[in-house]
Amino acid sequence: MTLRVVPPSKTFTVHSSLLFDPKKKAFRKNISIEVDRDTGSITNVYERDNEDDLRLQIYAGDIDLRGAGKCVLPGLVDSHTHVFLHSYTDRPSIEQMRDASALERIIRATSHVRAALLAGFTTYRDLGTEALGNADAQLRDCINRGLVPGPRMFVATDALASNGSYEIRRENKSLSGSGGLIVPRASDPCDGVDGVRAGVRRRVGDGADIIKFYADYRRKVMRFPGPGTSNTSNQPILFPPDDPRRRNPAVPLFGQDEMDAIVREAKLAELPVAAHAGETKAALMAARAGVTTVEHMFEDSNGLLDETLEEMKRQGTIWVPTLATVESAAPQFMEDCLAAVRKAVKVGVRVATGGDTGVIDHGLNARELELFVKAGIPIEEVLEMATVGGWEACGGELTGYRFGWWEKGCRADIIALDADPREDEKALRKVGFVMKDGKVWKRDGRAVDMITVPEFPPSMDN
Amino acid sequence: MTLRVVPPSKTFTVHSSLLFDPKKKAFRKNISIEVDRDTGSITNVYERDNEDDLRLQIYAGDIDLRGAGKCVLPGLVDSHTHVFLHSYTDRPSIEQMRDASALERIIRATSHVRAALLAGFTTYRDLGTEALGNADAQLRDCINRGLVPGPRMFVATDALASNGSYEIRRENKSLSGSGGLIVPRASDPCDGVDGVRAGVRRRVGDGADIIKFYADYRRKVMRFPGPGTSNTSNQPILFPPDDPRRRNPAVPLFGQDEMDAIVREAKLAELPVAAHAGETKAALMAARAGVTTVEHMFEDSNGLLDETLEEMKRQGTIWVPTLATVESAAPQFMEDCLAAVRKAVKVGVRVATGGDTGVIDHGLNARELELFVKAGIPIEEVLEMATVGGWEACGGELTGYRFGWWEKGCRADIIALDADPREDEKALRKVGFVMKDGKVWKRDGRAVDMITVPEFPPSMDN
Amino acid sequence: MTLRVVPPSKTFTVHSSLLFDPKKKAFRKNISIEVDRDTGSITNVYERDNEDDLRLQIYAGDIDLRGAGKCVLPGLVDSHTHVFLHSYTDRPSIEQMRDASALERIIRATSHVRAALLAGFTTYRDLGTEALGNADAQLRDCINRGLVPGPRMFVATDALASNGSYEIRRENKSLSGSGGLIVPRASDPCDGVDGVRAGVRRRVGDGADIIKFYADYRRKVMRFPGPGTSNTSNQPILFPPDDPRRRNPAVPLFGQDEMDAIVREAKLAELPVAAHAGETKAALMAARAGVTTVEHMFEDSNGLLDETLEEMKRQGTIWVPTLATVESAAPQFMEDCLAAVRKAVKVGVRVATGGDTGVIDHGLNARELELFVKAGIPIEEVLEMATVGGWEACGGELTGYRFGWWEKGCRADIIALDADPREDEKALRKVGFVMKDGKVWKRDGRAVDMITVPEFPPSMDN
Amino acid sequence: MTLRVVPPSKTFTVHSSLLFDPKKKAFRKNISIEVDRDTGSITNVYERDNEDDLRLQIYAGDIDLRGAGKCVLPGLVDSHTHVFLHSYTDRPSIEQMRDASALERIIRATSHVRAALLAGFTTYRDLGTEALGNADAQLRDCINRGLVPGPRMFVATDALASNGSYEIRRENKSLSGSGGLIVPRASDPCDGVDGVRAGVRRRVGDGADIIKFYADYRRKVMRFPGPGTSNTSNQPILFPPDDPRRRNPAVPLFGQDEMDAIVREAKLAELPVAAHAGETKAALMAARAGVTTVEHMFEDSNGLLDETLEEMKRQGTIWVPTLATVESAAPQFMEDCLAAVRKAVKVGVRVATGGDTGVIDHGLNARELELFVKAGIPIEEVLEMATVGGWEACGGELTGYRFGWWEKGCRADIIALDADPREDEKALRKVGFVMKDGKVWKRDGRAVDMITVPEFPPSMDN
Repeated sequence: MTLRVVPPSKTFTVHSSLLFDPKKKAFRKNISIEVDRDTGSITNVYERDNEDDLRLQIYAGDIDLRGAGKCVLPGLVDSHTHVFLHSYTDRPSIEQMRDASALERIIRATSHVRAALLAGFTTYRDLGTEALGNADAQLRDCINRGLVPGPRMFVATDALASNGSYEIRRENKSLSGSGGLIVPRASDPCDGVDGVRAGVRRRVGDGADIIKFYADYRRKVMRFPGPGTSNTSNQPILFPPDDPRRRNPAVPLFGQDEMDAIVREAKLAELPVAAHAGETKAALMAARAGVTTVEHMFEDSNGLLDETLEEMKRQGTIWVPTLATVESAAPQFMEDCLAAVRKAVKVGVRVATGGDTGVIDHGLNARELELFVKAGIPIEEVLEMATVGGWEACGGELTGYRFGWWEKGCRADIIALDADPREDEKALRKVGFVMKDGKVWKRDGRAVDMITVPEFPPSMDN
Repeated sequence: MTLRVVPPSKTFTVHSSLLFDPKKKAFRKNISIEVDRDTGSITNVYERDNEDDLRLQIYAGDIDLRGAGKCVLPGLVDSHTHVFLHSYTDRPSIEQMRDASALERIIRATSHVRAALLAGFTTYRDLGTEALGNADAQLRDCINRGLVPGPRMFVATDALASNGSYEIRRENKSLSGSGGLIVPRASDPCDGVDGVRAGVRRRVGDGADIIKFYADYRRKVMRFPGPGTSNTSNQPILFPPDDPRRRNPAVPLFGQDEMDAIVREAKLAELPVAAHAGETKAALMAARAGVTTVEHMFEDSNGLLDETLEEMKRQGTIWVPTLATVESAAPQFMEDCLAAVRKAVKVGVRVATGGDTGVIDHGLNARELELFVKAGIPIEEVLEMATVGGWEACGGELTGYRFGWWEKGCRADIIALDADPREDEKALRKVGFVMKDGKVWKRDGRAVDMITVPEFPPSMDN
Repeated sequence: MTLRVVPPSKTFTVHSSLLFDPKKKAFRKNISIEVDRDTGSITNVYERDNEDDLRLQIYAGDIDLRGAGKCVLPGLVDSHTHVFLHSYTDRPSIEQMRDASALERIIRATSHVRAALLAGFTTYRDLGTEALGNADAQLRDCINRGLVPGPRMFVATDALASNGSYEIRRENKSLSGSGGLIVPRASDPCDGVDGVRAGVRRRVGDGADIIKFYADYRRKVMRFPGPGTSNTSNQPILFPPDDPRRRNPAVPLFGQDEMDAIVREAKLAELPVAAHAGETKAALMAARAGVTTVEHMFEDSNGLLDETLEEMKRQGTIWVPTLATVESAAPQFMEDCLAAVRKAVKVGVRVATGGDTGVIDHGLNARELELFVKAGIPIEEVLEMATVGGWEACGGELTGYRFGWWEKGCRADIIALDADPREDEKALRKVGFVMKDGKVWKRDGRAVDMITVPEFPPSMDN
Repeated sequence: MTLRVVPPSKTFTVHSSLLFDPKKKAFRKNISIEVDRDTGSITNVYERDNEDDLRLQIYAGDIDLRGAGKCVLPGLVDSHTHVFLHSYTDRPSIEQMRDASALERIIRATSHVRAALLAGFTTYRDLGTEALGNADAQLRDCINRGLVPGPRMFVATDALASNGSYEIRRENKSLSGSGGLIVPRASDPCDGVDGVRAGVRRRVGDGADIIKFYADYRRKVMRFPGPGTSNTSNQPILFPPDDPRRRNPAVPLFGQDEMDAIVREAKLAELPVAAHAGETKAALMAARAGVTTVEHMFEDSNGLLDETLEEMKRQGTIWVPTLATVESAAPQFMEDCLAAVRKAVKVGVRVATGGDTGVIDHGLNARELELFVKAGIPIEEVLEMATVGGWEACGGELTGYRFGWWEKGCRADIIALDADPREDEKALRKVGFVMKDGKVWKRDGRAVDMITVPEFPPSMDN
């Protein structure tokens, strides 16, 4: 191959021998992608007729991702993350929220977003700062301004929850109006139709790209604390109910009218809505309200799964089952969850992949996709859920961007694996190349351009 | 001409040779207007048969505005002003609101209202103090008490907006309850049907003559800050969406039920309602709610212009297109705006002229009228919009006054141009004479009586 | 006289036939003063040999203040003013502070500073906003930025007072922690050596040029309210003590150690100190502490006048007796005050003229000087006190400026009377010409350049 | 050279051919330094007799920094930094403090400390967060916990200042209790002997390693705002005093008694004290009080330089002249500052090098040392000031550590230049190797180990 030297161009081309095409849900050969480095978007996608042609086409600035075992994908989307949390096995989330300094959490977040980007995840749908206000919007904007490398973020800021629900649990409340432990606010509380409207509006004003609300939550944490509620007495509750479901069930936090109002208000602001639902009961209510996505839906205590999936299909609701978190934090639900995912796909419910990453460490995001494969979903389906599905979960056209597939005008988010994911089940852990918005962040398995230092200005030269 | 000396009278007469009559939308000759100096109102309007009669009628105290090139008009109404803002080209509004002291803004306002009066604008419809609470009501009352010269003001005090919408943008919010920047409140926030009712009532209690609400606003200022959002990082957002409309679109701030409630409540208080609407989408909702006026309506991203104009015509909604602000701050919309104004007039939508003055400097108010002429609207129509149209925008009979035309009982607001506006397109800049409420403030092109100093009282005589 | 046309120069010359020279305490003839219009300062002062020379020297831009009956003076200094107060005969100060809106008080202040400037007072030593925080510093800076015409201001912001002393009197305090009337803070309260240090520092940070403190005040206002304490019951106190002095005497608000600390701290910040003292007792303490000026000193209930004057002479303390306020608000003290002033001058105490203007209307400032003449002080002495004395009271070199006399580098503050003050006792009311910082604000008895309106920019030309 | 493979050892050795020895103020040859990787400290320092011996001594894990042009130094100390500020040429400090989000500032700080470490600065004496409370202590601890790479930090948290002094300037204060701009607190204000004692104690409790106080500051920023006070009106002050010194002089913020009390209290807590002093006047007071260091001392308006240097010598006060900031932000003082540094060194005043880094960008820290060389100080003296001098400025033995020279027990902070600083004046910019606490962060001019990503745990293996 000869390299023709030409003047630097505002466009360059990425050449692949094996590439996954999410819109076709198929692997394709000999695709080249032309990128505009100024706009960071794709300007052309074409199939090369034969490699002889290529010899004549490779220019300085072009990137060659051809070769045996290499597989090019659109940058992946993790559809459920928390950049301000790290692995609960290091420290329970309640302790991270209650005790860690904002500075420590922010410093960890800079590592998190870097690790995610290096793992090939070029978009993060970050669903709540967990007691750091709208720091996610500020982090998003710092990434967008080039101050720190990380994925393109779509953020929820504070999640909405009704009063007294999604809070840091504490025994030490003041008995008499003064004293007691004051903990950071873990959600933006609101109640009633007018209250949730105001809540949605506060979120928009705070910079949210997505409205997230807790459709249900476990609320008997004071009475029947579970593991991870660390500020509990050392004395366990002696005789909790035998039925675990009756100890601390996830119950709806909002009525149907409030969920309807949240969705209606978010539509006025042209934003998508994500509903946390541990149980199918709340998921069904959320789907009826017209949310964009249902998150989790681990449990089906009331036998509503089929009805819920039907409603979701009818409404076009996207399900983000966050299997990696189930595996890590609630393995008892794993088998049911995998079965539910299979059923959903069969029924035709739209699914997107999001690990609830933060519960597991950022950088391990691919685990979610592996668990989908483990559930029996074909790799082509999984990759489509992790790209186009992610874009839809972020709001699709409402985001103002297109990403996750190959088309003129899409963001130039391009990654390459060092193995074929059809053959190597660990292939998604082997990300050798990462480009986001036309800028390369990883090459030959190594981070590039992530450490920059200032140069001495000419004024300091003498 | 002989002048008969007679005892001072409580009435005097203003004589014109050329006069514009808004009710007839026509220029008329040889009209005289009798004014009662005690009530400041017109007591008689008559056409002089011949100038011989006049010889016998001129008395001491009469004012002679006859002569070649002179043209008498009713005092003009600027239907959209902000007395506490000055030209954004000197300083962006966000900096004026955030940084300038209340004292500086008030001192500037005294210059603003003086300049407006000298420019022949005897009535100001002032739509929001922009972060100075109800200082406009206090300024109105200081003018009414003779403490400072200025137009007759009808004021909105704070505008109503939903939560998290019309605020001064700031990055530096506290992450955890302490620190961060606290900025002045730029609107009175309210949400829900009951919330907006209370909001309207607070405005009435604060001294508002007009209820103003933001029907829409651009809410992605955190994610995609534009110019003029000065407390943004120096680092620009690297890859905003290609489509400007998707960067930071104006989206509705209230639901239809809330807009309906605002209008219903304002009617109880017998006050008119002004709706800020950047887009036709929100303007249509506001018109359906029955607002008195729609302000701006620069953009029609959703292709709703025709439907909106039809609805406005049906409802009798007045449109204040604020062309001077388009010219100055959003020239990219100018051509579409001029076309929309032409269409509105053709369809029969009621239009009034207001410059959003403050965005451009006070005293340049006539520019708005010139732009209407530029749009192709006949000067007679424009002058009617700037007088009777202004009165209607202020609330018409609800104001308790009549002004803007010639009739017994109308305020004696009389100005004279030094040129005929049918012949000289800059005639409206050539205001040689200004009377408001029967008191002369400008004569022969020069301010009179605006600077007064105290006199030494007799007690200090020895 | 021929006028030679020359290119515009950065300097021009003011010619006088009769001029008062404060440093010589004498009237002089045929003095010319060269002014740099860019720096606003005097660049040369010279005596013309004969008027023949002048014929050759008059240029375009020069100002001719010669002529029979004209008398040129340096711009006058009112050494005790309150720009945010107006005549108490219109409304008692307590009502102005308690009830008038900040906006009304600011609008009045713009008239006040304009009237003062037109009355020939080019410098104001403004001693306290009276419940408007540091609005005086903001007004000072607006004048300095050319936003509103007025004197050069040196301001105190809030005066310091000990707790519970200089407050707006009110009966309606809450009995149980909630309710009652909340009134604006009329001083910055501080106590103890460390407390007053902090107080001084807060004042500096707020923009003060002068530290003012209340050395004494009448504190039995709740028990024996006098006239002007308007929120008193209509029922008078039936049997107050016969001795008026025992009803509500002015008593010291600070101990000697606190006054010492105030002065020490102000010196660290390089600022002068003004002490309000109604009685000689507190004045003596303040003089011992080393204050720059003692204000008022109307009463000598304890027979300390001689001792106090001696101490003031020794310390170089300046006395500002505010006679105009005595005349207007406490005429019962007038005769004693005039005698005390005569004694002070005889003893050699430095005196400056300040009317406590605001108690009487701004613009009537000359009354203070007339009262000094009435006391028997020669006009040359009085004019020196009103110019150089005023500069010293403002802090002298600490101000960073020189003004009040004729010398290269002094501010070009030049006024002209239409009468000779040696012959016409009302001459000081007849100010025909006012220049401040080289800019003319009054000419031929009429205000100039005070009303400006914006011009249409070229961008609005088509 | 043969490499003998041996079992991994807890110690390894760094070999140099050219090394600077601060204690001897001399360059030495053939020095080897043995390091304990567990304690991160030096266990042995020895001169190699001949290179033959070395052949037998090199083990796996040893580091070879020998070679032509290479020069080994102890890790450098920047004795005056602000990790939460970046170059004022990008954005004035007042805007960084007022407007930038805490998150943005923290993210920038992670880049700053990384750049500093890569520039060979292994210790930072960080003198104030500038409106971020005690975030520096949290950053210090995150570095110490290995969460982010950076220098060893000794921090001041908030600086102490008297009331109304070191604050973010703002015009828009509320006039009457509501509204106005609230800005972040830029210092911990305290007044009086008891007040400053409490202030010192609050700092200790907040995690400070060093007590910093402002001995003086410019306080007329309201009256005469300079460049960089961005929330000033666009209208400049028309006639500021001619003498720049009289516009906004740096005046003492504390009395001698208060400075004495600060030092006394810090000694109780066994912490060093740093005094900011722009002028010699305040520096002299601080030196008399017994502070550890005087920072800046740019100006000598009162001619006290000789007296101050004498007092500093007598007291053992260290001077940190922050020349890099003079060069960048106040070049008019540069020549005088360089002369003063020469005089101080001649007189025998202890000097340490600190760039006020943050005013210039972190990573350019070496500029301070270059400016000392420019002043004519021999390179051996400068390197001693930048190592042992830095340790002393940090508190010496009070820090609990030894660093900056070669001795058993000292921290293993070792850097290598790629040029000999005696021959190449840019040598200090050519840092090829950085070790801190025995851990290598830069090798062959490239960062190592700074980017880490999590590994998939075995639990995710199937």
